[in-house]
Amino acid sequence: MTASNDLNQFDLAPDHKLYEGKAKIIYKTPDPQVLLAYFKDDATAFNAQKKGAIVGKGAMNCQISSHLFRYLAHQAIASHFLAQVAADVMQVQAVEIIPLEVVVRNRAAGSLCKQTGLELGLVLPFPLVEFYLKDDALGDPLLTPDRLTLLNVASTAEIAQLRGLALKINSLLTHFFQDCGITLVDFKLEFGRNPQGEILLADEISPDTCRLWNQAESDPHRRVMDKDRFRQDLGDIEAAYKSVMERVLAQEL
Amino acid sequence: MTASNDLNQFDLAPDHKLYEGKAKIIYKTPDPQVLLAYFKDDATAFNAQKKGAIVGKGAMNCQISSHLFRYLAHQAIASHFLAQVAADVMQVQAVEIIPLEVVVRNRAAGSLCKQTGLELGLVLPFPLVEFYLKDDALGDPLLTPDRLTLLNVASTAEIAQLRGLALKINSLLTHFFQDCGITLVDFKLEFGRNPQGEILLADEISPDTCRLWNQAESDPHRRVMDKDRFRQDLGDIEAAYKSVMERVLAQEL
Repeated sequence: MTASNDLNQFDLAPDHKLYEGKAKIIYKTPDPQVLLAYFKDDATAFNAQKKGAIVGKGAMNCQISSHLFRYLAHQAIASHFLAQVAADVMQVQAVEIIPLEVVVRNRAAGSLCKQTGLELGLVLPFPLVEFYLKDDALGDPLLTPDRLTLLNVASTAEIAQLRGLALKINSLLTHFFQDCGITLVDFKLEFGRNPQGEILLADEISPDTCRLWNQAESDPHRRVMDKDRFRQDLGDIEAAYKSVMERVLAQEL
Repeated sequence: MTASNDLNQFDLAPDHKLYEGKAKIIYKTPDPQVLLAYFKDDATAFNAQKKGAIVGKGAMNCQISSHLFRYLAHQAIASHFLAQVAADVMQVQAVEIIPLEVVVRNRAAGSLCKQTGLELGLVLPFPLVEFYLKDDALGDPLLTPDRLTLLNVASTAEIAQLRGLALKINSLLTHFFQDCGITLVDFKLEFGRNPQGEILLADEISPDTCRLWNQAESDPHRRVMDKDRFRQDLGDIEAAYKSVMERVLAQEL
């Protein structure tokens, strides 16, 4: 397994396509342990009931994610990231994705507000780690610890490990974004198991998967720098993503 | 505070009405610590999106609940029940209702199946105790332990107490219904605090609040003896409730 910046070495040919998700297409490579993730401009929300495209999103999310995975690697957080091989293509380790969305919340937003009536932006007394079943047909339901146990998606030890990793990553990313003048409101992580059974951070970390608020703006609409601009039709989506990218890439590792 | 079987002593006059819920009306009495619960024939489901009436339901549920509260009292489970004063009227202690629906599940059914994909009727490896916020506007959302903590609806000690009570009641009711030839699939409890701060079982225990399956029937529609007959338009609702009542009342305490 080798990481590579050589574009000639890979091929995004249709017959190499392994899997197409809502925001990425995964391609095989000659090395079974290495895959390519092509980041699409397609945007979806509300379990794909809302669909659209954000011009340049694929390349911006790939660059933001790559930089954040590199930053986390420096802080001893293992991920599937190997290399960024084009603006919108990431070379990653092949992992078996654990079908859970691990959400960390520092402030109340999104479904937490809708479901509990907590006020948008409320600073939570502790970071909330929540597990959602990654299942579009079921609408990605929130799982209680007991339901997690019942569904047997991951072992109790793995759940504890995911929870610990999520909290560590939250602490690291909160500081990283703080240095960018951005508040990390909440975010979603996915993890996978490599052939050795190790748990690796996977998927992406981008304005598609994080709620990010510009600290220089107090207006609840203007401050939004993430996919909520798309969900809520706030406009200027590309500019918001571009500003996140510029601030993230400006942080030296 | 005295329990009474004297119908002349209370009055269901409109100006004594304290609160009207979906299935019951609560009336004041001259004693502020005593209320009257009038059980209605009205039936609602899916957060009141489906409405109807089940002839005789009020009286049947009041009698079933009264008998089950008496049974639980014999087993040292304190409830708000004081006396049944008419077929459809229960005299109860005034309590401040804790805004939680405490659900105990022995087998997978209802929203658990819809949300997790678990098969209807699957015997769970342990009784599942779940807490839902009693809030119609929010759709009675399922709460994780962390969300329970965040919302501060009850103290951590109270939550532990509710969980313990729910499991004890489940064990007792499972045996009770077993003796009736009925499988207790799942049920919903509500609790309240009396002026002394003690937690009492409240609300009702009836085919409106329990899933009950006739053990003599294997057909998944014919076995249903509870409000699922109404939710799913299975017909013969009154007969099912009547059979539950007859079996419950036949159990000597």
